[in-house]
Amino acid sequence: MHKSDLSVLPCSLARTLQVVGEWWTLLVLRDICFGVRRFDLIQAHLGLARNILVARLDTLVEHGLVVRERYQQRPERYEYVATEKGLDLVPAMMALVAWGDRWAFGGHPPVHFRHASCGHDTTAAVVCEVCGDPLRAADLRVHEPPRAAAAER
Amino acid sequence: MHKSDLSVLPCSLARTLQVVGEWWTLLVLRDICFGVRRFDLIQAHLGLARNILVARLDTLVEHGLVVRERYQQRPERYEYVATEKGLDLVPAMMALVAWGDRWAFGGHPPVHFRHASCGHDTTAAVVCEVCGDPLRAADLRVHEPPRAAAAER
Repeated sequence: MHKSDLSVLPCSLARTLQVVGEWWTLLVLRDICFGVRRFDLIQAHLGLARNILVARLDTLVEHGLVVRERYQQRPERYEYVATEKGLDLVPAMMALVAWGDRWAFGGHPPVHFRHASCGHDTTAAVVCEVCGDPLRAADLRVHEPPRAAAAER
Repeated sequence: MHKSDLSVLPCSLARTLQVVGEWWTLLVLRDICFGVRRFDLIQAHLGLARNILVARLDTLVEHGLVVRERYQQRPERYEYVATEKGLDLVPAMMALVAWGDRWAFGGHPPVHFRHASCGHDTTAAVVCEVCGDPLRAADLRVHEPPRAAAAER
């Protein structure tokens, strides 16, 4: 099934993955959000093929997560800058990072993040916006059950 | 670049995407975590090709996010059950859902989630585990700067 078919699912996760579910897209966006903004630097940092980086940057620009800005006139040079929409994905990325820290690196994170506003090293916690308690799978109920599950009953 | 090359990056986001960065993997896991556990039901719900669903389930089983359990003897029938490792991805998925609610559905979520422990409809918020304040890109500093950025200085 082609990726564009994801857009027919009435689901914010599917719609999000349609934008950033491709292998490298989130990693490229992560670099840009944390200051690695130039094509050659992103390529060197991630070690991916140029044509793939071009495609992933196009996706990010197309969906408005990143804009291309000129930083030099002669010769013309551009860098990529995250928009509000792109920066707003950082918290979800941090939640994915926290999972990887726990399950892929056994609780020994290869990279540390300092939370400037409190001064401590931080790990992302995902909480309920209303009560502030951690969101756990067991406590969540979907309002509209999936059609397939409904048909099973 | 082949997906397995992601594993050489010393980065929890890369390692996480190596497991769940494929188009359908997170959607399949989401269904299983929320109770759609049988092959035919997942397939009907997501509308994806059988061979792709087989491959995505294999990935989830291989990485220990899901186990295959027999629920009927004659004929033998199996369902897929999320492990602790798999269920622990739900908070990060909810953070991705929240982004999609805001940016792909203009703040009108197509699916609502009830937080059973507080009784309210909930949206995921990503906060600093230490101080509890929302984690925003602008407040985060990476301890080990990317090699490419370091070389630039």
